Amino acid sequence: MRIGFIGLGIMGSRMAGNLLAKGHTLTLWNRTAARAAELRAAGALWAETPRALASQVDVVCTCVADPGALTAVAEGDDGFLAGLSRDGLVIDFSTVGPVATRHLDQLCQARGARFLEAPVTGSKNGAAAATLLIMCGGTAEAFAAAQPILGAVGGKSIHVGGVGQAAHIKLVGNLIIAHMVQALSEGAALAGAAGLNVETLLGVIQSSGFASPFWDFKGKALAARDFSTHFSVDLMHKDLTLALAQGAALGVPLPGTAAIREVYQMARARGQGERDIIATATVIDPALGVA
Amino acid sequence: MRIGFIGLGIMGSRMAGNLLAKGHTLTLWNRTAARAAELRAAGALWAETPRALASQVDVVCTCVADPGALTAVAEGDDGFLAGLSRDGLVIDFSTVGPVATRHLDQLCQARGARFLEAPVTGSKNGAAAATLLIMCGGTAEAFAAAQPILGAVGGKSIHVGGVGQAAHIKLVGNLIIAHMVQALSEGAALAGAAGLNVETLLGVIQSSGFASPFWDFKGKALAARDFSTHFSVDLMHKDLTLALAQGAALGVPLPGTAAIREVYQMARARGQGERDIIATATVIDPALGVA
Amino acid sequence: MRIGFIGLGIMGSRMAGNLLAKGHTLTLWNRTAARAAELRAAGALWAETPRALASQVDVVCTCVADPGALTAVAEGDDGFLAGLSRDGLVIDFSTVGPVATRHLDQLCQARGARFLEAPVTGSKNGAAAATLLIMCGGTAEAFAAAQPILGAVGGKSIHVGGVGQAAHIKLVGNLIIAHMVQALSEGAALAGAAGLNVETLLGVIQSSGFASPFWDFKGKALAARDFSTHFSVDLMHKDLTLALAQGAALGVPLPGTAAIREVYQMARARGQGERDIIATATVIDPALGVA
Amino acid sequence: MRIGFIGLGIMGSRMAGNLLAKGHTLTLWNRTAARAAELRAAGALWAETPRALASQVDVVCTCVADPGALTAVAEGDDGFLAGLSRDGLVIDFSTVGPVATRHLDQLCQARGARFLEAPVTGSKNGAAAATLLIMCGGTAEAFAAAQPILGAVGGKSIHVGGVGQAAHIKLVGNLIIAHMVQALSEGAALAGAAGLNVETLLGVIQSSGFASPFWDFKGKALAARDFSTHFSVDLMHKDLTLALAQGAALGVPLPGTAAIREVYQMARARGQGERDIIATATVIDPALGVA
Repeated sequence: MRIGFIGLGIMGSRMAGNLLAKGHTLTLWNRTAARAAELRAAGALWAETPRALASQVDVVCTCVADPGALTAVAEGDDGFLAGLSRDGLVIDFSTVGPVATRHLDQLCQARGARFLEAPVTGSKNGAAAATLLIMCGGTAEAFAAAQPILGAVGGKSIHVGGVGQAAHIKLVGNLIIAHMVQALSEGAALAGAAGLNVETLLGVIQSSGFASPFWDFKGKALAARDFSTHFSVDLMHKDLTLALAQGAALGVPLPGTAAIREVYQMARARGQGERDIIATATVIDPALGVA
Repeated sequence: MRIGFIGLGIMGSRMAGNLLAKGHTLTLWNRTAARAAELRAAGALWAETPRALASQVDVVCTCVADPGALTAVAEGDDGFLAGLSRDGLVIDFSTVGPVATRHLDQLCQARGARFLEAPVTGSKNGAAAATLLIMCGGTAEAFAAAQPILGAVGGKSIHVGGVGQAAHIKLVGNLIIAHMVQALSEGAALAGAAGLNVETLLGVIQSSGFASPFWDFKGKALAARDFSTHFSVDLMHKDLTLALAQGAALGVPLPGTAAIREVYQMARARGQGERDIIATATVIDPALGVA
Repeated sequence: MRIGFIGLGIMGSRMAGNLLAKGHTLTLWNRTAARAAELRAAGALWAETPRALASQVDVVCTCVADPGALTAVAEGDDGFLAGLSRDGLVIDFSTVGPVATRHLDQLCQARGARFLEAPVTGSKNGAAAATLLIMCGGTAEAFAAAQPILGAVGGKSIHVGGVGQAAHIKLVGNLIIAHMVQALSEGAALAGAAGLNVETLLGVIQSSGFASPFWDFKGKALAARDFSTHFSVDLMHKDLTLALAQGAALGVPLPGTAAIREVYQMARARGQGERDIIATATVIDPALGVA
Repeated sequence: MRIGFIGLGIMGSRMAGNLLAKGHTLTLWNRTAARAAELRAAGALWAETPRALASQVDVVCTCVADPGALTAVAEGDDGFLAGLSRDGLVIDFSTVGPVATRHLDQLCQARGARFLEAPVTGSKNGAAAATLLIMCGGTAEAFAAAQPILGAVGGKSIHVGGVGQAAHIKLVGNLIIAHMVQALSEGAALAGAAGLNVETLLGVIQSSGFASPFWDFKGKALAARDFSTHFSVDLMHKDLTLALAQGAALGVPLPGTAAIREVYQMARARGQGERDIIATATVIDPALGVA
């Protein structure tokens, strides 16, 4: 299968690498061409524009940062839509929200092409190991057609519904992660104030009915004061803001999320925006930021 | 080993049953004598007072509802302290907070007896199946001496520190549970507003890195609108209030917990105090309470 | 002075009435023509389109519901911009946020006309009595030129800064009002639970250093369970959402506002969206909704 | 009238000074005798113990810091209760909460004496100028008997109900103040982020229907970055904690207060506990703490 991949950031470059490793013919485009060097050395092709890329492949994959970047690669004279074949398939792995994803779906439909939104979760480790969880929104036909690609980049794909619903449930998933991080922060701070360290707390949690791999992942980072970024404060702040906007639009009160979003706001105001989400613990208890 | 068990409520009666099943000589006392009938039919003995019970056994176990009930069975002319032997061991499985538990520890020490606080988590199912998680506070010696009993009633025992610290970490654990329930409530409400049901949300969560048995436990109950009580809104409200009081006393800001406690307050004001904690979801979205 | 007035809602119709009463030549346009009947009977003229209106007057005033309505009357073939004279003056009394107001300013500048944003506060009573507080954003020259109109419709005009800053400070004012309403709701609920009624609480407040006419206005309504609308829950919800969006964009944590916005969300979910903001007290304490 | 005054702190010393200035015979007792020097030089008498004081006067006034201090001066061999005449009158100006105040009332009743709780609001300025607002709880007869004293130390006295209700409404008043301070903090931070300073915001507020002397008092302090203490963060934190405890006990959800209490917690954790409540603004926006 001839596959095009647009967007070679932290996630996209690893996902593209897995497609190449599975033997697919891979054509790349990225705003900064230099980021494609390693994959090109490994056999990937290069296209001069997204449009040129689309005209050479069966499937166009995108993985970009935000709605503006998606518009930039999709629309206009050099956009991939202009090069798309009538029976083409577009898979968007970006997290851009229901509005942007529905807009792109309509543009694809207008050209006779199929569209699948496919936001992922699992961090850069999951992207490298091809164990990402992929939430898919689109027709059953598009979901079926995308299987070879989904299988190459992720560990599990779930077809949650129509276009827009995968973006929506991705926001819900991040809302849940934010509550878990907040629980860990407040729990660690309260335990610490009574002389109990994060490791002891983790020992209790992971022996309980509410154990989760996530507690280990973030708890060990917190215990080690390791705030290197897997999921940044800025990015989660953006997603909580989107979730609250959805709540306001759909009439759903979100008092926990609202309180937590402001903690992220405080973390950003204190210069922690680019650190990992677990750095928000230092807003609750500055001692959690000190080794 | 001769064991006395005081307090035959939902948890205590099941734990006592497991001690009897393991072949221990078991003597019982309960405020309402009738609740001991089944265990007595199975071979357990009965004492007329907590004091009489203490004078006949090597280890006194207690599992009562609150600090007042603990005082009632421990102190005064008929209290078990008066019957305690000098090298006796007292194990308290109640959840009564650091203050009450430290007070009882001092009274035991004054009589030359050893004390272990041992609050449990795991619900009535875990009590019946002897899979409870037991958090222990006390000396290493008391923890070692209690092993045969802990092993008979629980699946895992963790020695977290001195007396009071187990009560403290139990509150922290409940704080974390409250965040998870809130995450599920808000997530389910937001998903539902976009046409995605709880089962679909659970499917995504349980395929992710933040999967947990707890999501299944509470998520399936929510999907089925089954609010039968495993852990009541009133009880969690009490524990969150204790956690916030600890936070205020120890100087730890708890903005997530503070927001969530008021949701429990709203649930109580709407007559949901005795239902399961997952019933708080109906405060967020009344539709989650309708089949 | 020949004045045109576009938008004859609750506020606009009363403001236009005051301009007419001061002897100005007034030309009207409104989407629903029937709403102009009373003022036309009192001597006001009618224009067939916003563009026609603009070509007949020296100053164009607008007072519409939201950014979409503003675009509809300003832009396009029939919009007032097309009829504006080069030295014309546009005064927008709408509350539409900094983004929309800056956009309109640029369109006016492009035509050589002057623009003043002039959002008001003071409810329909203040609109009728010409005692509105008017926050103005624009050049000193535009503010000076607008004086005859501002003086006719309001009690006080404050020039806060450039275009966009008046919209911004209007949001801040509403944020403050929301905190005061929340204070009154929670205070009345807590007082009531101890047997103290709203009148007694008001007596204490109004004798204190934090007395304000606003407490009387809303407190008496609450005491009388009179939820007739001066400022609706839906409208405040919209403004708090805008304020939180500004906070997120500008990096300002707003934990009080975030908590309060969700109370408005709960009020809306319980069918209180069109009632007065003081109806949010019934979310805190249902007893405050019962006479 | 022979009046005894116990407790010569910031408030009590100024109130006692006003009683002396009105020509009353004043007898003093204070834990630190030196603090009475200035009033003794102006003609006040001194008693060796609270009991001795009570035996020499018609009315015993108290103004101490907390319930423990009240117990210390009231009970025991040297306490004023032991010296109280059967028809004596006790007026307590302290803010000690409903529980402590009801306890003292019962001890007075047991001795045949009358009791009035009389917490005050108005800061040290109001204490000096005798413009305090006094909230009174007790019988109508006790309130009537206390008039000469209340009139000498305060500007207005309100009889809100029985003993305990004045303490309760004082907490409600502080809850309202906390919301106003939060509104000012968040409003000033949001305005500041758009280039609008506190003075401009104050100009708008004080021209509006929600104007209040309190905005001027705190707004001018904030504009000047003057955090000298009129009402400390620690003290308000204590009162909000009491209000939340009352809410939890009486079944009243207080989501705004809960969010705000955690802001005070954060201020304390950042070393601002002894500064004025307006210093909490620096938690929201560190720029508000920089001149």
